[in-house]
Amino acid sequence: MADYDVFDLGDVRLQMGATLRDAKLAYKTYGTLDPDKGNAIVYPTWYSGHHVDNEWLIGEGMALDPARYFIIVPNMLGNGLSTSPSNAPPPYDRARFPRVTVYDNVETQHRLVTERFGIERLELVTGWSMGGGQSYQWAVSHPEMVRRILPFCGSARTSPHNIVFLEGVKSALTADAAFQEGWYERPPNKGLRAMARVYAGWGFSQAFYWQRMFESEMGYSSLEDFLVGFWEDLFLPRDANNLLTMLWTWQNGDIGRTPGFDGDTGRALRAITARAIVMPAEKDLYFPPEDNEWEVTHMPNAELRVIPGVWGHFAGGGLDDDQTDTRFIDETLKELLAQDV
Amino acid sequence: MADYDVFDLGDVRLQMGATLRDAKLAYKTYGTLDPDKGNAIVYPTWYSGHHVDNEWLIGEGMALDPARYFIIVPNMLGNGLSTSPSNAPPPYDRARFPRVTVYDNVETQHRLVTERFGIERLELVTGWSMGGGQSYQWAVSHPEMVRRILPFCGSARTSPHNIVFLEGVKSALTADAAFQEGWYERPPNKGLRAMARVYAGWGFSQAFYWQRMFESEMGYSSLEDFLVGFWEDLFLPRDANNLLTMLWTWQNGDIGRTPGFDGDTGRALRAITARAIVMPAEKDLYFPPEDNEWEVTHMPNAELRVIPGVWGHFAGGGLDDDQTDTRFIDETLKELLAQDV
Repeated sequence: MADYDVFDLGDVRLQMGATLRDAKLAYKTYGTLDPDKGNAIVYPTWYSGHHVDNEWLIGEGMALDPARYFIIVPNMLGNGLSTSPSNAPPPYDRARFPRVTVYDNVETQHRLVTERFGIERLELVTGWSMGGGQSYQWAVSHPEMVRRILPFCGSARTSPHNIVFLEGVKSALTADAAFQEGWYERPPNKGLRAMARVYAGWGFSQAFYWQRMFESEMGYSSLEDFLVGFWEDLFLPRDANNLLTMLWTWQNGDIGRTPGFDGDTGRALRAITARAIVMPAEKDLYFPPEDNEWEVTHMPNAELRVIPGVWGHFAGGGLDDDQTDTRFIDETLKELLAQDV
Repeated sequence: MADYDVFDLGDVRLQMGATLRDAKLAYKTYGTLDPDKGNAIVYPTWYSGHHVDNEWLIGEGMALDPARYFIIVPNMLGNGLSTSPSNAPPPYDRARFPRVTVYDNVETQHRLVTERFGIERLELVTGWSMGGGQSYQWAVSHPEMVRRILPFCGSARTSPHNIVFLEGVKSALTADAAFQEGWYERPPNKGLRAMARVYAGWGFSQAFYWQRMFESEMGYSSLEDFLVGFWEDLFLPRDANNLLTMLWTWQNGDIGRTPGFDGDTGRALRAITARAIVMPAEKDLYFPPEDNEWEVTHMPNAELRVIPGVWGHFAGGGLDDDQTDTRFIDETLKELLAQDV
């Protein structure tokens, strides 16, 4: 039995023009919606992640406490649970799955929140990485609904360098002849493993590797053990077309492309009325703090708060055994939720 | 007609055990050796580079002035000019080419310098990237010969993170079925292009991409134009086995593995008596300044000098049209060469 619910979206007209017919949004909720519907939080997933991968930041006594808040975790389109290349019926299946934008993702989530639950205001939208990108998008697409956002290790617009990093990931995956331009019958395992190794250098900082924290903090027995046991294990079970769908979504992330903003990211940032704490990680290699600094200068009600330390992008992944980064994020979430807005 | 000379090495016993028979060292010299043989400089090549790719730092009025110095640029084993998978006779050809260490490279260069030229002292060993690694190795292998070293954007030991970055590069290249485990008859172009795209994110800094300097400083017409016109163009003409040979050399670079040092990199660093200026680039993503800082604390006669700016690793590549980085490197070389040692 699935541990999540499904919202039938029907036919979804996507921003790039295709119509995703009979689309589904997989989601899970934590806690109970107050009678006045005033305690809802949306917490979208990240690249390749499922709702369960968000659960480390939800719990009793934490900011995202199900005893207090009604927390909705919607799965991104393309992640294998919501409508994706791997589960869509023909003709929009597999390699033919249409291009989905961050804007599209938020529109489907908005329908879930409003149509299924009748929620009119969100206390918070937060998320890691691409989940952070969706947080900005919520604040731009539905400013009247969103009180606060806390994107961590994400950005409002995917930077040129981040696009290039993803080009490397994509090229490694698709270099495998077994990928067959997306029409594989068996997984392109060589490409998936290659992709994992490309990703490995980006996910954690140089200092994390220098200090061999994959051994001391994560318990892997060697560098190679970490590459296989963590990285290959992360991507090998995923569907290649799903990964490429989400990768396209990521590469093309830009709140400036929200209808009405004409590609002007600065104007979209200035339109964010939600109270925001924008939280990069100090040594994140593909969402460097500088990019968020630039964003915050354009956001009328935002503050930058850098997660210190050497974990790099995965500071936001909830992997640190000693919980230093988790506590930092959780305490900042508590602070933001306590602010009257 | 070739624009370089060849030194016949005969049979070379490599550090890892194989014997490279009838080996050749391709090199080029610039300037004239003084009668007292006191004006020699060694300037080794970098990953995939040939001697011509070093010439931007050699010239009249520059530190490496052929009117004053006798500059020897030896091509690394595996680079396609010196003995390499692409030109070695069977049975050690192509995918069967033996593993070559940085130590091996320096030993062959030492033979060139002493046997062909009768040189006993080197005024300087300098180089970019893997050329920097060879500079440290010279100072450890032959401390009595080397007065000064100036490694730029390199390291004495390849860091774990750098190893992982190269794992990504290697995985992308070898994911291409056309690679055929190294026994290709036609180049694995898809893998070479994938490797180039992986490399692209590492070679220049996030800020370089953010500022779109591939357009403003380098004249490419778009991000994609830069990926194809610069990066794919850089690796597509190279032989895949050659690239993998040099990659293995790089991944296994460690002056601590010099015979007599028993893997102790710190002890090898402390044994460097040459006057050294160690010069990382501020935003180098795979040779970050921190790694060189650690080295300099162990080196008895060394100073750290960081190349400022956003070019990242390619600050040492001589590509900046306005010559800012080139001037910085050149002036530091002049300063070091002017020091009595």
